Amino acid sequence: MAFKSNMFLVLTVALTTLHLGAHAADPDITSDYLVPTGVNPDAKFFTFTGLRNILSRNTPSNVPFKVTKVTNDEFPALNGQSVSYALLQYAPGGLNAPHTHPRSAELLIVLQGCLKVGLVDSTNKLFTQILQTGDIFVFPKGLVHFQVNLDPRYPAVALAAFGSANAGTIQLSRALFASGIDNAVLAQSFKVDSDTIQKIVSANTA
Amino acid sequence: MAFKSNMFLVLTVALTTLHLGAHAADPDITSDYLVPTGVNPDAKFFTFTGLRNILSRNTPSNVPFKVTKVTNDEFPALNGQSVSYALLQYAPGGLNAPHTHPRSAELLIVLQGCLKVGLVDSTNKLFTQILQTGDIFVFPKGLVHFQVNLDPRYPAVALAAFGSANAGTIQLSRALFASGIDNAVLAQSFKVDSDTIQKIVSANTA
Amino acid sequence: MAFKSNMFLVLTVALTTLHLGAHAADPDITSDYLVPTGVNPDAKFFTFTGLRNILSRNTPSNVPFKVTKVTNDEFPALNGQSVSYALLQYAPGGLNAPHTHPRSAELLIVLQGCLKVGLVDSTNKLFTQILQTGDIFVFPKGLVHFQVNLDPRYPAVALAAFGSANAGTIQLSRALFASGIDNAVLAQSFKVDSDTIQKIVSANTA
Amino acid sequence: MAFKSNMFLVLTVALTTLHLGAHAADPDITSDYLVPTGVNPDAKFFTFTGLRNILSRNTPSNVPFKVTKVTNDEFPALNGQSVSYALLQYAPGGLNAPHTHPRSAELLIVLQGCLKVGLVDSTNKLFTQILQTGDIFVFPKGLVHFQVNLDPRYPAVALAAFGSANAGTIQLSRALFASGIDNAVLAQSFKVDSDTIQKIVSANTA
Amino acid sequence: MAFKSNMFLVLTVALTTLHLGAHAADPDITSDYLVPTGVNPDAKFFTFTGLRNILSRNTPSNVPFKVTKVTNDEFPALNGQSVSYALLQYAPGGLNAPHTHPRSAELLIVLQGCLKVGLVDSTNKLFTQILQTGDIFVFPKGLVHFQVNLDPRYPAVALAAFGSANAGTIQLSRALFASGIDNAVLAQSFKVDSDTIQKIVSANTA
Amino acid sequence: MAFKSNMFLVLTVALTTLHLGAHAADPDITSDYLVPTGVNPDAKFFTFTGLRNILSRNTPSNVPFKVTKVTNDEFPALNGQSVSYALLQYAPGGLNAPHTHPRSAELLIVLQGCLKVGLVDSTNKLFTQILQTGDIFVFPKGLVHFQVNLDPRYPAVALAAFGSANAGTIQLSRALFASGIDNAVLAQSFKVDSDTIQKIVSANTA
Repeated sequence: MAFKSNMFLVLTVALTTLHLGAHAADPDITSDYLVPTGVNPDAKFFTFTGLRNILSRNTPSNVPFKVTKVTNDEFPALNGQSVSYALLQYAPGGLNAPHTHPRSAELLIVLQGCLKVGLVDSTNKLFTQILQTGDIFVFPKGLVHFQVNLDPRYPAVALAAFGSANAGTIQLSRALFASGIDNAVLAQSFKVDSDTIQKIVSANTA
Repeated sequence: MAFKSNMFLVLTVALTTLHLGAHAADPDITSDYLVPTGVNPDAKFFTFTGLRNILSRNTPSNVPFKVTKVTNDEFPALNGQSVSYALLQYAPGGLNAPHTHPRSAELLIVLQGCLKVGLVDSTNKLFTQILQTGDIFVFPKGLVHFQVNLDPRYPAVALAAFGSANAGTIQLSRALFASGIDNAVLAQSFKVDSDTIQKIVSANTA
Repeated sequence: MAFKSNMFLVLTVALTTLHLGAHAADPDITSDYLVPTGVNPDAKFFTFTGLRNILSRNTPSNVPFKVTKVTNDEFPALNGQSVSYALLQYAPGGLNAPHTHPRSAELLIVLQGCLKVGLVDSTNKLFTQILQTGDIFVFPKGLVHFQVNLDPRYPAVALAAFGSANAGTIQLSRALFASGIDNAVLAQSFKVDSDTIQKIVSANTA
Repeated sequence: MAFKSNMFLVLTVALTTLHLGAHAADPDITSDYLVPTGVNPDAKFFTFTGLRNILSRNTPSNVPFKVTKVTNDEFPALNGQSVSYALLQYAPGGLNAPHTHPRSAELLIVLQGCLKVGLVDSTNKLFTQILQTGDIFVFPKGLVHFQVNLDPRYPAVALAAFGSANAGTIQLSRALFASGIDNAVLAQSFKVDSDTIQKIVSANTA
Repeated sequence: MAFKSNMFLVLTVALTTLHLGAHAADPDITSDYLVPTGVNPDAKFFTFTGLRNILSRNTPSNVPFKVTKVTNDEFPALNGQSVSYALLQYAPGGLNAPHTHPRSAELLIVLQGCLKVGLVDSTNKLFTQILQTGDIFVFPKGLVHFQVNLDPRYPAVALAAFGSANAGTIQLSRALFASGIDNAVLAQSFKVDSDTIQKIVSANTA
Repeated sequence: MAFKSNMFLVLTVALTTLHLGAHAADPDITSDYLVPTGVNPDAKFFTFTGLRNILSRNTPSNVPFKVTKVTNDEFPALNGQSVSYALLQYAPGGLNAPHTHPRSAELLIVLQGCLKVGLVDSTNKLFTQILQTGDIFVFPKGLVHFQVNLDPRYPAVALAAFGSANAGTIQLSRALFASGIDNAVLAQSFKVDSDTIQKIVSANTA
């Protein structure tokens, strides 16, 4: 909610309200929907087309793993509606590395290909599953999870739904090894020498 | 939550707990996940395969419109996770008639084909949109909406996500004209004669 | 939260506050009550007198059915308090046609006369009841319901309480037949010919 | 939720479920409504007639002040619906002494007669108002409030709505002076001698 | 919510945002944290040092009872995080007189000395306990409670945690006897003569 | 919530209820407090003495870092009250390694000694702070954080409050490296060779 000062006042109005509406809360609303100041909602307001090219052309991404978010940041009509999406594209061997979502469970459905998914609960129990196209897996709120496309030839595509307009993502490799935490703290945390830690830090901050 | 009396008490207890877990509430939970009594959760518990055949084989349904729900009724691991899905299949010309969801907004994404969608807010303002494959439309909580596949040749498939483990559906044609509401009440409500009402009632209760 | 002053903010203030304060949310608040900018709350702020004439003089309305809302729109002190009222007046034969409230259950109490009420759940099961003065009926959140004063001579008055500062109302005859939904969609939805639909549309949009 | 042990186990199970449904929480539900075990809901389930005699006959109570609650305890259909009522009857001079509701705001409407109401916020600011028949006053969540019928001849009747199925009531005179708190603590709290405290304690515990 | 235009625009801005942003709600947020406009959050933003002197120097307060609040008013980083503290210092014989918190339960831990605590539920049942250093007592949401340091020589210190960024406090002696409620109402409420009431009022408003 | 079948049916019922009460949800309750079946609540029910020895004797723990939880598991009176504690003891050099809490923010206060704390937000920005005795730091919901006692001689003690009766903890070193996630997945996630991963896995699973 960090507002920059702004020369264009009408825009200021819109952005102010949008940001407050967008980030302040995920509660039941007391109107049908929330509209940024100055916006007169039409059908486009309720429509998001940012996944059209990806899904209609079925173009594989040129990176091992790519996530395209559809939260209240990209799609303001989601403000106050407590639901959002992310589209996940995996090249052969592509990995969505272990991460958590601080503000919602995730309901993943495989749209194309196969995925191995993993879930670790707070007792450190690991659940893994091979999902085929059409299969669904639920990652409960706040728990560590990952997905990997083990197929050497075919890409995979999955859609993730969240019960929040903005579930957030903590990418654990980067949060732990690319955020600047002292090597000494990391070495003590992961019970290895500082050189080993430095190797991981270097690989993740390159 | 209508529990039948049961001769086998241990089973009764188990079912009672399951039903309370399943239907009582959609709040933040105070454990990682909720498990029905007697269930030792493994990876299958977090997996739902009921859409695999539909999505992997891309088999068109043999009815104009078909919905397959993935709520806490079909997938108990959703209890307490505040998210669910429904898969929507439309034959050419197929219609998901006007309805509401009492307990959540809906975030619809077109997976195949094209759809015309309509949304009516509480001021009776109509928003319509043509969605292509990959497009997303949000139907805010409790508002009347519908989708129709206007294409004369190709089927369409959409996925709907909800921010509740069980959003509920009020199919308005049936709730209004197939539930037994007095014809006189309906005639007065819709400002037409009783014969017209009876024609609609007969068509919807046949 | 210390906000930096800004020279160009007149419009920003009013619109921002209106949208956020009035419509943003129905959560637990973190102050005793919410006050619009510039208002110094006194006892009048917590008082609503808009029903005084209706209830004290017991004046029948000159229309078959009349609803007077007491939401956070009419009574800003309700913001953040998660409760509101509506006063319902029925002439002899008067009908509150089938509708839903997207954001709250309704607890109706008959203050004068008798009412027949109807409730349809999501399995399309109809529950009807004759209520006498003083009787109470609960319409669960989001379900279709109606009330009608079957008495040919005497008016009826009811009060409805809601567990939201603004529960919203979807008047189904108008949402369906006066919002501009294509006749073809309506005909297919209600399984009747387009002429029948047009008759209803004309009656409801006249 | 203090359950007694029970010889009849099937009944025990049923009551357990009822009590959990009744007292455990006030959240959004994931079904249309909650039904106690063994109950097959019909229209009576959604109906409460306990105020019929009071409101239809307009019989004054024979005590200075009388409250009749309509919570999920008296009316189980309210479970999960987040709304409830209380009917308040005041003889001439009758007082609903200062109290708080721990779990909801209160929206009071005067149905008959006049009332003086008082509200004290957490800064100890008092708001008082004279309400006529039909007037509404909101007492925000958790704040001290009272009502008194100052008319020497006519009774008054009010209805209170709450945004919880069971808002609770802390009757302050009794919580403070009839619960057994040490006189020394009360004397120090209210800055008077122990004899004065004892006088109040005796009057309220007689 | 029709806002009056206001001559002092810059001030209006600050107050508007302050009231809405800071106090409007205690819901789940849709960002990691909430930051006031113009603030670029650093580690200081997440740090509160206002208790340092009290706790590190263990300086007894010079009043019988002193509370130091750590809510979103004193510590804006708490906005949207649903948790707060209060530090409680008791001289020998010091009393935290009977009060309620309208918006959260309280979890009290004794950090130094001993305390007698009391809790009164809504049936006016009193629970009292002697707590030693390190002991914890929970005061459920909205219920009357107090603490007293019975030790004639040693001070006591306790910390209270709340599940709201701003739980609020209703100090009952002042809300009842120092807010200006009519003596007649108080006399009737507490069943004593007006002179007795006046004695208490005078003692609490001096 | 995995319930074992039980020969003693009354007990089964009791436990079922307890577990549902204990683990099902963290919502507003509709009673003053929740009591397990068969428990007649007295003052002990609201009291937790498990920290008494630690805090009153100030005994340092014999491990580098020790956490003692006070959640609804250890203290059932917390059910439904949305607040809990954890006591954290750090030997000189002791570390509370990077972790997350899936269901609440954490408000940490240093009771003895000094701590360095670190917080990583979802953009991988690190915030670090040196806290003295009495200082408070808030770790927003779901974000990675840690604390370390850098002092070579003196132990440190901190208390953490949570706005949930059971916030949960994901200890990231163990969730990632001691849960059995495939080394190949970990190597790809952390961008290092499998031997390096195996070194960390061995160190954390020994």
